[in-house]
Formats: sequence, C-alpha cells, structure tokens
Amino acid sequence: MPAMSLAEFEALCRDEAPFCELFGFRVERFDETGAVVRLPFAPALIRPGGTIAGPALMALADFAVYAALLARIGRVPLAVTTGLTINFLRKAGAVDVLAEARLLKLGRRLAVGEVTMTAVGDDQPAAHVTATYAIPSSAVS
Amino acid sequence: MPAMSLAEFEALCRDEAPFCELFGFRVERFDETGAVVRLPFAPALIRPGGTIAGPALMALADFAVYAALLARIGRVPLAVTTGLTINFLRKAGAVDVLAEARLLKLGRRLAVGEVTMTAVGDDQPAAHVTATYAIPSSAVS
Amino acid sequence: MPAMSLAEFEALCRDEAPFCELFGFRVERFDETGAVVRLPFAPALIRPGGTIAGPALMALADFAVYAALLARIGRVPLAVTTGLTINFLRKAGAVDVLAEARLLKLGRRLAVGEVTMTAVGDDQPAAHVTATYAIPSSAVS
Amino acid sequence: MPAMSLAEFEALCRDEAPFCELFGFRVERFDETGAVVRLPFAPALIRPGGTIAGPALMALADFAVYAALLARIGRVPLAVTTGLTINFLRKAGAVDVLAEARLLKLGRRLAVGEVTMTAVGDDQPAAHVTATYAIPSSAVS
Repeated sequence: MPAMSLAEFEALCRDEAPFCELFGFRVERFDETGAVVRLPFAPALIRPGGTIAGPALMALADFAVYAALLARIGRVPLAVTTGLTINFLRKAGAVDVLAEARLLKLGRRLAVGEVTMTAVGDDQPAAHVTATYAIPSSAVS
Repeated sequence: MPAMSLAEFEALCRDEAPFCELFGFRVERFDETGAVVRLPFAPALIRPGGTIAGPALMALADFAVYAALLARIGRVPLAVTTGLTINFLRKAGAVDVLAEARLLKLGRRLAVGEVTMTAVGDDQPAAHVTATYAIPSSAVS
Repeated sequence: MPAMSLAEFEALCRDEAPFCELFGFRVERFDETGAVVRLPFAPALIRPGGTIAGPALMALADFAVYAALLARIGRVPLAVTTGLTINFLRKAGAVDVLAEARLLKLGRRLAVGEVTMTAVGDDQPAAHVTATYAIPSSAVS
Repeated sequence: MPAMSLAEFEALCRDEAPFCELFGFRVERFDETGAVVRLPFAPALIRPGGTIAGPALMALADFAVYAALLARIGRVPLAVTTGLTINFLRKAGAVDVLAEARLLKLGRRLAVGEVTMTAVGDDQPAAHVTATYAIPSSAVS
C-alpha cells in the first residue's frame, strides 16, 4: 500500500503544482514499489527532427520520481529535487512515453530514484535518469 | 560574430521547435562566447512551495546550451542533447530566471556546455547545469 | 559469447593499462550481457570514517563499463569515457565490492552503461553509476 | 582565512585517509575561496592510448572539493560525497594535472562544488566535475 493514495497525490498536484498540469502527466501506477507515469504526446513537445524534446522527458522523469517518493513517504509536498542526470538513449517519436520510476535509496534526508523511459511501441528505452531528492527535516518520522 | 544570426536562430525555433515556445524563452545574448536566455516567470511554472519547478530550469538550461552551440557552429538543428546534469543550488521564487551558457568543449562530434542560472534579483545562482550535445556527422566541416 | 575473450581482455589491461592494476580489479563475469568486477578490499582504500573511498568505487564502475563494452564490441582499447555520474547510496565497509555493469545503449559512436555496486554481504547497493563511452570511428564495422 | 589550516588538513589526510596518499595529491592552494590540488604524473596512471586514466581525475576532483569544503567548514572529516558528475573534455597526456575547486553552494546539510582540471601546459581544460557533499548534522553550528 502506498503511504498516500493516488487520489490524494493527484489532488496535491492539482492544487499546489500547476507545473504538473503543463504536460498532462497521467500516473498509471503508484505504489510502494514505485510509479509509472505517462507523457501523452502533443505537437507542442516536438523539437527539430520531429522527436520529443529532451526537457519534456526530464520533466517526466522528475515527476515520476516525485510520485515514487511520495508513494513511500506520504504527503511531503516540499520534498525537492537536488540533482538530476539524464542520459538520452534513442529518439522518441510522436507517441506517448512511459516512465517507470523506483527508489534506489530512501534515507531520512535524501532519496535517490532511477527512471527508465520508453516510447510506446519501442522495445528499447528512450532515456535513463537518476535523481536525488532532499526530504525536509519536518517530514522525518 | 556568431555563426548564424539571432534572427535566424529565432526563426529556426519558431518554425521547427514548438517546444521552445512553451516556456517563452527570450534570447538576450547570442554570440561566439555563449548565450544568455531569460525564462519569463509565469504562474504555470510553480511547484509546491511556490518556487519555480525544477524541470523549467532544466528546459531553460538545455535551450541555452543549444543556443550557445548553434551560435558557434551555425544552423545545425539536429544537434541533440545526449546527457544533462543539473544541481539545484537555491530556490528560485516567482521571478524571471536568467541562464548564462558557455561551451566547455567544442569537438567535431561532441560539445559540452555549462550553464549558470540565477533568479533576477538574487546574487547567488539557483542552479548549475552541464550538458553534452552530439553534433551530426553531416555538420562536420 | 563475448566479442573478445576474458583472457584477451585481461592481457590488454596488463599490457596497456597499468591503471587497472592499481586497484587489483578481478573480472568475475565477462559476456555479451555485461560484466561483473570485484574490487578486493585493501586498507589503502579507506577514507575518514573507515569506509571505502568514493573514488575507488568510481574507478571500479568505470572499469566495469569498459569491460562490458569490450565484451560487446571486441578489442577497441581506445574507447574512452566521455562522462560519468555516480550516486552514493550507502557506505561500503571494509569488505570487497562487486560491480555489475550492463549497457543501456550501444550505438555506433556512443555507448551508455549502468553499474550497480554492492559491498559483499550487503543486500542494498552501495552506489549507482551511469557512464558514457565514445567509440572511435575506426572501430565502426 | 580557511576554517582549518592546510597543515591540519594534511594531517587529517595522513592520519585517517590512506586513500589520499595513493595518488600523491599535493594541495597548492587552500583558502576560503577554494582549493587547488596537483596530481603528480606517474606511469601507474596510464590507460590505453597513453593518457591519464579517467578515474584518476575523478579522484583528484573529489579530493579537491573535499579540500575546498573543509577549508570553509573546518575539520569535519565525515563530510561525504553523495554524488559526482564528470565530463571529459580533452585527453591529459603524461604530465601533472591541476584541479581548481570552488563551492557553488554551501548549505547546512549539502554543499555543491565545481572543479576544472587542466593538464600542465594545456590552455584548455581536461575535465569538469560537479560534486555534492553531505555535511553531517553534528557539524552544523
């Protein structure tokens, strides 16, 4: 069982995080093992070459780790990314992209997540991300 | 002198890169020494806590390196990011953010850029990025 | 079957890469799916706190990706790291560390590898690495 | 003035950090603005191609940030690297390498440092690093 419900997580995003809405992310899995988030394709995501712009995948990965983290620690909206590294592996065409995030580490003050992103229909990943989140002290139980 | 004009760069973004428009980036410097790009503040950029969402800064930095690179090599729209690392240094409030990008390396096949981003009015940077771009072979002169 | 034998890989390291000897790395798996490399514990690896110094793990990971890459592409000694990111997850005590490396991507010019390192006896990883290698043109078949 | 003397820092390395000795690092600047550390060339540092092995530069950069951090916060030996990203920019031949480290951020719990490494005699850098250190709570004044 996640530490908060998906409905609560979605309400948090809707109420306090207009940025989440910008890309129309859809959380497809949200539990204690991680999160899967879909980036619906939209023409506004295109970069030269007709592929999905890298920063859209960065945003997707960052959000997926946020979801995976809050699924574990509950409603701690002020958990913030302290660093993120993305490696692009293959271009993602004009289709939805799925991000699967899991935590590599969950400490009291820091969490590290890993994300694999795959364009729907591809069998090889489009990008890989590791991201570090700082957990505010007040959230430590 | 840059290898293409700022007007040409802006036309490229307008014509082939709808993603660039999403954030309303404004290129304020574009020459052989690098690029400065402004992210105008908008309420849609907010994350929980009232600060600018990290991925908006990732997008800004990625775009600033793209500008710095094309200012040096000219119109090579298919230059693509192969990897990017961001470190967040301090929160950026509800103001514009300026990104200053310069190239650490410009090889035949790879370029590496560095970006320092600062919220307008702050004297300390909000985030630091390094990013690697692959330059397609056809662009090699 | 790997693209070169483990004995050939070890000979390459012995003949051309004195750096490999510095840590006494032992390749325990070397095949087309990846590589496993052991860092034997030694007192010289200690940092303040009695744990293994981070750079020893960076060296281990970098070498493990090199092994995984050459197991796939054969004897291309001049394949070189272009970038590496490490996240430390938990301290590794005074024991051997095992690194398991696999390729996330193998392109003509670039390869990306991922490494998970675990101190012997721990059930959680000590560190995670992603690394990018440039493959020289002359190696392209 | 640094928060501890260079002699105290060198004693710490000698007494508690055998790993520091492995490469023979020499601290050439150590003050409140940062640190400069020299990696003396040694044949054991060579990788295929006759250039300095990447992990030797990773170790150098990590140590240089540790020096820059302790020059600011004093004797906190248990400050530990939580993450590090290196970008290789040009090969370093068989000469000494100088690393210049400075802090991009010094918070209560996290510090972020940046390092530029240059082979002696080169006018362009060999590698660039960003690294994050966790500062133990007991060190917070």
